[in-house]
Amino acid sequence: MKRGLLIVLSGPSGVGKGTVCRSLQARMPGLRLSVSATTRQPRPGEIDGRDYYFISDAQFQRLLAEGAFLEWARVHGCHYGTLKDKVAEVLASGSDLLLEIDIQGAEQVRRLMPEAVTIFMAPPSMAALEQRIIGRGTEDAQKIRQRLETARQEMKAYRSYEYLVVNDEVEATAALLASIIQSEKCRVSRGARPPLQEVNEV
Amino acid sequence: MKRGLLIVLSGPSGVGKGTVCRSLQARMPGLRLSVSATTRQPRPGEIDGRDYYFISDAQFQRLLAEGAFLEWARVHGCHYGTLKDKVAEVLASGSDLLLEIDIQGAEQVRRLMPEAVTIFMAPPSMAALEQRIIGRGTEDAQKIRQRLETARQEMKAYRSYEYLVVNDEVEATAALLASIIQSEKCRVSRGARPPLQEVNEV
Repeated sequence: MKRGLLIVLSGPSGVGKGTVCRSLQARMPGLRLSVSATTRQPRPGEIDGRDYYFISDAQFQRLLAEGAFLEWARVHGCHYGTLKDKVAEVLASGSDLLLEIDIQGAEQVRRLMPEAVTIFMAPPSMAALEQRIIGRGTEDAQKIRQRLETARQEMKAYRSYEYLVVNDEVEATAALLASIIQSEKCRVSRGARPPLQEVNEV
Repeated sequence: MKRGLLIVLSGPSGVGKGTVCRSLQARMPGLRLSVSATTRQPRPGEIDGRDYYFISDAQFQRLLAEGAFLEWARVHGCHYGTLKDKVAEVLASGSDLLLEIDIQGAEQVRRLMPEAVTIFMAPPSMAALEQRIIGRGTEDAQKIRQRLETARQEMKAYRSYEYLVVNDEVEATAALLASIIQSEKCRVSRGARPPLQEVNEV
């Protein structure tokens, strides 16, 4: 069984990662989206176990102490983390796994699993990002300002990623992500080989 | 003007590079296919200046002495070469350029232009390759044997390429090449950047 590919997707809050990921998964049904554990409150429509594992601060601290997280981060005052055993399980099954995580988390994954494909998603402009955050309608004015300031800081981190995609239009961005994943699978350095028969014959 | 991407495509004779390239160009009209100079005789349907620049041995030797070739190779007793100034011109204009060249030529390009994206195209099986060479109907039995033996040797070279694609079906292979080109354009190491406005604002 060929091991699956680990893909890390980051980008400022409100850039549209979630929407693009859903479109990407429709294009690549074999792709699994990682479900993070978080201590933040569910937003309207979010379902436990599908969007996140919503856990308490105490549960998070216990898992952290056990070394159970591949990566974790504190964002906007809440904790987010990816459980190591969930990641290992999916990759071992041969499925590709996409982690939608923040730049601190991506840095940790890069260290522990340098084979991960890292992608940064940028908005077409800061004005567009602001509109998206306001349009979401789930944040108060102070949180919006906080998110925008964080976004400005986070934008600088794109340099640490292998790929940069600009989310101008959801379907085009999803197609681009699919292209990146498919082309990474063709990399000789990732084990792409001619079909077995040729290798044997050669 | 952003410089175009140089893409090198190699693979054994008969693997279907030409057919895939035509399909690729239909998908990516901005992509330019490099036209090589060659001393071999035109095959039926091949047009001078479109498929190759058909030149004499004397002309080839003169250009070689002038250092005019980015790469050149002797294959099946004939010479093939890519003219440096043609490549430079296309890339400077911002267009991507695909070089369909043999493994000796790819090695030279890799040395002179390490930024080139290198792709090796393999057949789904040696039997399939043999069928395609026979089916072409333009070669006598001795030439077919010669090409197959060369192909077996050439298959080993895939390890020196960044990407391996298996040409099972023309359209799928062309789509994969398009994915590789599009994803390479998103590489931060190749200069992918967030739109100017953000860079300035950040």
